[in-house]
Amino acid sequence: MTNDEQSIRALVASWLHASKTGDVDTVLSLIADDAVFLLPGQPVMGKAEFAEKSRSQLGHGAPRLEAWSDIQEIEILGEWAFMRTRLTVTVTPAGGEPVTRNGHTLTILRKQHGTWLLARDANLLA
Amino acid sequence: MTNDEQSIRALVASWLHASKTGDVDTVLSLIADDAVFLLPGQPVMGKAEFAEKSRSQLGHGAPRLEAWSDIQEIEILGEWAFMRTRLTVTVTPAGGEPVTRNGHTLTILRKQHGTWLLARDANLLA
Repeated sequence: MTNDEQSIRALVASWLHASKTGDVDTVLSLIADDAVFLLPGQPVMGKAEFAEKSRSQLGHGAPRLEAWSDIQEIEILGEWAFMRTRLTVTVTPAGGEPVTRNGHTLTILRKQHGTWLLARDANLLA
Repeated sequence: MTNDEQSIRALVASWLHASKTGDVDTVLSLIADDAVFLLPGQPVMGKAEFAEKSRSQLGHGAPRLEAWSDIQEIEILGEWAFMRTRLTVTVTPAGGEPVTRNGHTLTILRKQHGTWLLARDANLLA
């Protein structure tokens, strides 16, 4: 495994951990400023909208979110890379039963000043 | 616009035209053998499954399909590239009214023997 691939796997691990603990600042530090998020049936989202949405999901009474990512492919293309994962997300509403959903992601990453960042993300979780 | 970008735009135009006319052979000629298709809420599809699905949608009584692709970004990364589009698809069932759906795509392309082919495709049409 190359250093680049190891760095991207570390990015995914940080992302999942920070998402679980509600650490939005860490999540945002892994995202390029010009990032674009694509979701089924929703308008395209930039980093600012992603940040706003993430912060709105925090706090007392918010559902608890836990995600697992099974990385199926990482391809390094110089200063860019793409990654394909199978994603499992469990959402537990306050006082409710957990609901699990599965789907895939296709992500473009970019190395900026030596650090890999998420640049384009298609999340096909239905 | 570079030659590579022009070639990728020509691939998209061929794809849409061949899809509209039910020319599955031409569509398949634009797809890398190891291609992977990702759709919301569905298992990953390879080229063989994509071919089978495309052929099953042909013939008398099949719905008529027309698609428009608004290319929002093409980034050439050497022998690889990625592309982001806004896709509009109109499906007209035999004897029925057309239904239009919108969504985005994120596609990885690869240049093989001088020809760009579709290699990974995330279609977020809901």
